[in-house]
Amino acid sequence: MVTRLTDSPVYAHLWSTPELEELLGETARWQAWLDVLVALARVQARHGLVPSEAAEQIAAGARAEALDLDRVTAGTRSTSHSTLGLIRELQRVLPESAREHVYVGATVQDVSDTWFGLLMRDVGAIVRRDLLALEATVLDLAERHRDTVMVGRTHGQPGAPITFGFKAASWADELRRHLDRLREGRPRWAVGQLAGAVGALAFHEAELDPLALRRDFCAELGLGDPGASWLTSRDRVAEFGHVLALVCGTLARIGTEVYELARPEIGELAEPTTATAVGSITMPHKRNPEVGEHLDTLARLARSSAGVLLEGTVVSHERDGRGWKAEWVALPEVCLLAGTALGLARTLLAGLEVHDEAMAANLERFGDRLTSERVLAGLSGRLGKHAAQDLLQGVLAGGGDVVDGVVARGVASADEVRGWMARAPVATAGRMVDEVVARAREARAGEGV
Amino acid sequence: MVTRLTDSPVYAHLWSTPELEELLGETARWQAWLDVLVALARVQARHGLVPSEAAEQIAAGARAEALDLDRVTAGTRSTSHSTLGLIRELQRVLPESAREHVYVGATVQDVSDTWFGLLMRDVGAIVRRDLLALEATVLDLAERHRDTVMVGRTHGQPGAPITFGFKAASWADELRRHLDRLREGRPRWAVGQLAGAVGALAFHEAELDPLALRRDFCAELGLGDPGASWLTSRDRVAEFGHVLALVCGTLARIGTEVYELARPEIGELAEPTTATAVGSITMPHKRNPEVGEHLDTLARLARSSAGVLLEGTVVSHERDGRGWKAEWVALPEVCLLAGTALGLARTLLAGLEVHDEAMAANLERFGDRLTSERVLAGLSGRLGKHAAQDLLQGVLAGGGDVVDGVVARGVASADEVRGWMARAPVATAGRMVDEVVARAREARAGEGV
Amino acid sequence: MVTRLTDSPVYAHLWSTPELEELLGETARWQAWLDVLVALARVQARHGLVPSEAAEQIAAGARAEALDLDRVTAGTRSTSHSTLGLIRELQRVLPESAREHVYVGATVQDVSDTWFGLLMRDVGAIVRRDLLALEATVLDLAERHRDTVMVGRTHGQPGAPITFGFKAASWADELRRHLDRLREGRPRWAVGQLAGAVGALAFHEAELDPLALRRDFCAELGLGDPGASWLTSRDRVAEFGHVLALVCGTLARIGTEVYELARPEIGELAEPTTATAVGSITMPHKRNPEVGEHLDTLARLARSSAGVLLEGTVVSHERDGRGWKAEWVALPEVCLLAGTALGLARTLLAGLEVHDEAMAANLERFGDRLTSERVLAGLSGRLGKHAAQDLLQGVLAGGGDVVDGVVARGVASADEVRGWMARAPVATAGRMVDEVVARAREARAGEGV
Amino acid sequence: MVTRLTDSPVYAHLWSTPELEELLGETARWQAWLDVLVALARVQARHGLVPSEAAEQIAAGARAEALDLDRVTAGTRSTSHSTLGLIRELQRVLPESAREHVYVGATVQDVSDTWFGLLMRDVGAIVRRDLLALEATVLDLAERHRDTVMVGRTHGQPGAPITFGFKAASWADELRRHLDRLREGRPRWAVGQLAGAVGALAFHEAELDPLALRRDFCAELGLGDPGASWLTSRDRVAEFGHVLALVCGTLARIGTEVYELARPEIGELAEPTTATAVGSITMPHKRNPEVGEHLDTLARLARSSAGVLLEGTVVSHERDGRGWKAEWVALPEVCLLAGTALGLARTLLAGLEVHDEAMAANLERFGDRLTSERVLAGLSGRLGKHAAQDLLQGVLAGGGDVVDGVVARGVASADEVRGWMARAPVATAGRMVDEVVARAREARAGEGV
Repeated sequence: MVTRLTDSPVYAHLWSTPELEELLGETARWQAWLDVLVALARVQARHGLVPSEAAEQIAAGARAEALDLDRVTAGTRSTSHSTLGLIRELQRVLPESAREHVYVGATVQDVSDTWFGLLMRDVGAIVRRDLLALEATVLDLAERHRDTVMVGRTHGQPGAPITFGFKAASWADELRRHLDRLREGRPRWAVGQLAGAVGALAFHEAELDPLALRRDFCAELGLGDPGASWLTSRDRVAEFGHVLALVCGTLARIGTEVYELARPEIGELAEPTTATAVGSITMPHKRNPEVGEHLDTLARLARSSAGVLLEGTVVSHERDGRGWKAEWVALPEVCLLAGTALGLARTLLAGLEVHDEAMAANLERFGDRLTSERVLAGLSGRLGKHAAQDLLQGVLAGGGDVVDGVVARGVASADEVRGWMARAPVATAGRMVDEVVARAREARAGEGV
Repeated sequence: MVTRLTDSPVYAHLWSTPELEELLGETARWQAWLDVLVALARVQARHGLVPSEAAEQIAAGARAEALDLDRVTAGTRSTSHSTLGLIRELQRVLPESAREHVYVGATVQDVSDTWFGLLMRDVGAIVRRDLLALEATVLDLAERHRDTVMVGRTHGQPGAPITFGFKAASWADELRRHLDRLREGRPRWAVGQLAGAVGALAFHEAELDPLALRRDFCAELGLGDPGASWLTSRDRVAEFGHVLALVCGTLARIGTEVYELARPEIGELAEPTTATAVGSITMPHKRNPEVGEHLDTLARLARSSAGVLLEGTVVSHERDGRGWKAEWVALPEVCLLAGTALGLARTLLAGLEVHDEAMAANLERFGDRLTSERVLAGLSGRLGKHAAQDLLQGVLAGGGDVVDGVVARGVASADEVRGWMARAPVATAGRMVDEVVARAREARAGEGV
Repeated sequence: MVTRLTDSPVYAHLWSTPELEELLGETARWQAWLDVLVALARVQARHGLVPSEAAEQIAAGARAEALDLDRVTAGTRSTSHSTLGLIRELQRVLPESAREHVYVGATVQDVSDTWFGLLMRDVGAIVRRDLLALEATVLDLAERHRDTVMVGRTHGQPGAPITFGFKAASWADELRRHLDRLREGRPRWAVGQLAGAVGALAFHEAELDPLALRRDFCAELGLGDPGASWLTSRDRVAEFGHVLALVCGTLARIGTEVYELARPEIGELAEPTTATAVGSITMPHKRNPEVGEHLDTLARLARSSAGVLLEGTVVSHERDGRGWKAEWVALPEVCLLAGTALGLARTLLAGLEVHDEAMAANLERFGDRLTSERVLAGLSGRLGKHAAQDLLQGVLAGGGDVVDGVVARGVASADEVRGWMARAPVATAGRMVDEVVARAREARAGEGV
Repeated sequence: MVTRLTDSPVYAHLWSTPELEELLGETARWQAWLDVLVALARVQARHGLVPSEAAEQIAAGARAEALDLDRVTAGTRSTSHSTLGLIRELQRVLPESAREHVYVGATVQDVSDTWFGLLMRDVGAIVRRDLLALEATVLDLAERHRDTVMVGRTHGQPGAPITFGFKAASWADELRRHLDRLREGRPRWAVGQLAGAVGALAFHEAELDPLALRRDFCAELGLGDPGASWLTSRDRVAEFGHVLALVCGTLARIGTEVYELARPEIGELAEPTTATAVGSITMPHKRNPEVGEHLDTLARLARSSAGVLLEGTVVSHERDGRGWKAEWVALPEVCLLAGTALGLARTLLAGLEVHDEAMAANLERFGDRLTSERVLAGLSGRLGKHAAQDLLQGVLAGGGDVVDGVVARGVASADEVRGWMARAPVATAGRMVDEVVARAREARAGEGV
């Protein structure tokens, strides 16, 4: 029974992607858990604890679609144990000879934390891929619009000129830092867990080398070895969640920018549209920046889940179900939200409409005023900065023409003032674009992208 | 495709209840939305805007199970519109003559906010019922254990005696305040929404009285009339979410208390067990306070969702999808979490094992020390409170026997000290129990419980 | 040593008000704590526990400005006890005969929680007063601009007409609900605490009636009696914090509206300015919506503190320093933030510039498109709503003239279409204004405002 | 006027350290801002924009203690501008010839963001130093107690044996990951800001090379060059705040562990005490785990501030006061909280009392039961794991003696069972300690510690 609107088939595209469904959906999760059990059995076979034949029988039989979920459910509820329903159902579908060799010496958290490691590795890879794709798009925007002059706005008010490429470069720079974070953090979160009852990995101690077993178990799944059990050391998970929430923050910043600049009163950007989209039923003329809005929605929810993960670092003793079970909800959630946001942002930016004529018109519209920084710079060279500031404030407060006002005060000729105003003060912005683009392209080349 | 672990059939019992599934599940949500459309059509028929026959055809046909969800999904995605897929599918299953009369003049948010009103009303009623049931159980505990003396603990350290009934009375008092909050807030959240495009309810203005239409629409659904559109006035939702998160906080407090006092080193409380429950596979002797733990987990997640709702009060203009779509996730979530927590807490408290012999033993074990407050009170009457405090601190710091120590300092006889220590200083605790119970029983009687 | 920027004298006006400084500042807090000690001594004198003369000596001597804070600090640190430094310093300045009668049987939390009660009562009164003043201003705006037609915006896009009075009425309605919440919640938070060591109020049990003592103690301070100790029952505090955060949310919503509508591209609202304000040093022409921005800043921080208070409801045993000490920071903080926000909002709204000519111009500018809802309504009466919707969508998608497009499709005459467009669809908006204003004025009259 | 309890001199030790006061206090902040202005002037002099003499006059005069804060305050309030009061006061104390050369081309955020960069660098260094010191202490604990066997607890219940060194190694491992995060993130946050009006650094464009100026400006202050302006690219700040909140999470985990294991019913750990500390006035025998508690309090507040910083990543346009001013509060706050927590944790762990005799006694007390994992392992080799699990569950459910129970079921001899139970299953735990310690010592050696 679907109780979460996020799982409604009708709205799933707002809260997931087909790819993430493949990775995080009900079946995929059971299969991932079964894969962990298979890896355990195989490695235990290699260490002589489990018959090789049994391990292969487990590998052959541990298929999510072969399980009767009703039985798993019934077993889970009757035992009040998180995995026993699954184990018993798996045993049921396995040959008799394999049954005793399932899930030997492991605990729920070994399975679910190792699944977390797989998730963080795989979702991390998706996030990286999408960040790289977004970066490519944004670098193109930055280069293409390196010299597309537009109004820069501060506190919501037109301030001084920038270029759209400069704005895009700021996005690119932020995306690049996320790529750095993902690369640096990966060894901390793409790890397995094999800890046993209290983390001491004591179960197999008499028969074999538990640390070698764990190392091989992690390797079998393509994960790093954690060194020490991390049953109640949850910074790994909290860090990953925060990086994803940060990514969502960047995408929400971009989405908000589109939302604001797509106001018809501004008209500088617009979301791509599709032929069949219906903006508003009651107001047929509307074209809503829905993706921009939704990126903000996703970021709110991602922050909220990341907060749960951060709180989950304060735990007790050798296992603590309080934070851990909250992670069961919050970690996949932040993965789904971030993955969805990345997909939406890719669509948004790939088809972003940049209305440079509106940018030019707005620049024109706010006229001389936007050049006040230039006049101030010009006058500062002559009067000192603070005297220039006072003088110009007086001119502008009067609401009159800037050239006339400055000339009337006898501190510069009209030609001088017009000369200051004529300079396009975006050369440095362009050079920052160049620097951001060059660094990113170099990094991408180094990463083989 | 289920992507949220909270929707996994295997774990649904941890994140929902059958009753909440009936109310909030996929089918129930569609049916609720359809019910809103039916109410709208019927009321519009009464106001002459829609043929009565069409309204009844809509009422007859608007059944969630009759809809083809794949078509709803396809329509939703192709239009990028939240309800158009539903409307078109509903039209498809309706007789030709009714089709044009569906969803006239309304918007997505009219439907979803009215659904929110229904949800807050109905979940509010469930929460109230469960709070009342919990209160009954806790009042019984308070009365039954009015005089069951136990160690009171502060900062995790044994302090001075209380009774278990006193502890339970503190829970009951908190539950009663939640009942008050629910009663007071209900008129604010059990309201409908009929606002139209920008809240001005202009659509029908030429043909009929829109405010009368709204009033009747709300009444048809058993909801209050909001007076003014609340498309971007979201305090109603944020308040409801916070009350539910507060309820979860109380239940987590109770759960934490059970968790801590169920430590075998303390052993004063224990969760009820069922015959088939398996505590730990690797440690067969374990009996985990899983419900207590899970109540804490649920409270964390509820706080997180309540935070999203609070953030959602800062919105722009006449409609703002950013906070609103986040509410789509967070409001049902907090309902599900609180409802689940209440169900678990009812089970936990109904079967709570109170080990009064362990309570007595712990009291005995920490011996004289727990009575230091009494000796202090006795000595204070003689020496003044601060001199008494200094003297007693000295005695206890030495680690020796309290009676001997005080006598040795020549300020009281052994009999006097023993007399002070013998007093059971829980009479006032008992009287507070009486007061809490009496007030609650009176309130319950007034509410017809 | 001031370490918090919020306490910097230079920036204090952004994070406090002179009135709140009087109430919450260092001296005021010590005085409030001393007042609690005085009330305790006086009531204990009345109950025969303390000599009346000593109580009066305490009352006479317990003045914050008489204390040597360096000694309080030294005593606090050497004892690691939160009040002992204060008590010893108070004893030092008192006559010998009074010293033993200070702080008898009470604990830190009795003092600090009772201070919380005083704070919630007094800050609650300030919030109420400011909400009433704001409501008066907003009601005036709503009435004055009942028929000032402007663009209603959804998803940041011009939608359909509203009036500015309608927008203001939505603010007023929300403010009124906060007034209701404050009134209803007051009995829960304006209470004292006298609980003793573990809440059982056992200290005085042998000598007097502790419950009568507590009742008189609370009454002496003008607070309600809590019925039961609430040392670890923190919903009272969490609720108060949430109401204040909700208030900040409303003010941030108003501030955001001003911020957005003050964009020169829109120009419909502007913040009041003062003669000496300097918008931007580097861009002398700027006039920033700084109050609007800051209201959002304050709301973020208030939400954050309210979250800490909500988390603080999950506590252990009979006293728990973890959540309680966090409340020491978060409760005063949310009081300061909300009080500051209210003061700023009063200034903002009292001097708000409403540019109705810009409102009219924007309405004109987006021309026919804004009337599409009206045309849709007109056509719906003829074609059915959905056929009308499809037709109009086609017309508008073509970008052509609405009248021409509809006429070309042969479903209405140009006069009919123009007739629909000419209707001012804000009559219902005006009636909602009337209803909100009438209800508020009635409520205010009932409250003697 | 101190309004924040965190700034009360009496309680400052709970919310700050003397070292942090030196770095973040009112005077230090003004001095840091002045230092930024000095660096700007000097570098501008080097680039020929400002006379060298003027730059040196600014350097000589820009001393916080020379400023009249009342004038700064008055100037700030009358201009409603965040730095103009400061600038004017600085100009007042400077020689006439230097006045015009102060703060040329820069904005408030250039100053405050560069201060953020200094803060993150310097607080980052303090955090690193304290983490290294803590790590040293914890590594010593891990080594010293490598083989101190104690009860491992899961879900608050005694589970199976671990060693105290193993517990400490888990702390050390987490601390080491924080050190890695600090090292990796430093280049992202220890950067300056010189962006000008809208980030385009246009002010000086005509006269000099702004990017070279910025590079030199950052170098002058010992900061990295950011490459692109980051006025609205706030992930740097959010990441730093999160790392500090994570650190606080770890310390709260340690504090909670001490709090719980210091319960007299458990008695395995105790906080260090000082001679003059007074546990409880009303209960003289108490010795509260106050540091452990307070570490949890600090972590709550740090999470709260980190959440504000994360929310601050969603910003608009080229400057956005909403998130930025919230950072003014939240970033220093999280620095102060984390720095305080580290100081407290150092004291706590340096003097931590480890009661190995209590650890041994508890292990003994829960007797056979704790060895069930061993018996299970032994029986599993014989019966298969699941059959062994069922059998043992039956034995333990009966409450009888484990040896007798197993023998009675005819699956092993008493000697065999006793042999399994006798094994000390903590060898692997010890090896994990070795691994954690070796890696940490190697890393420390590489860092020259």
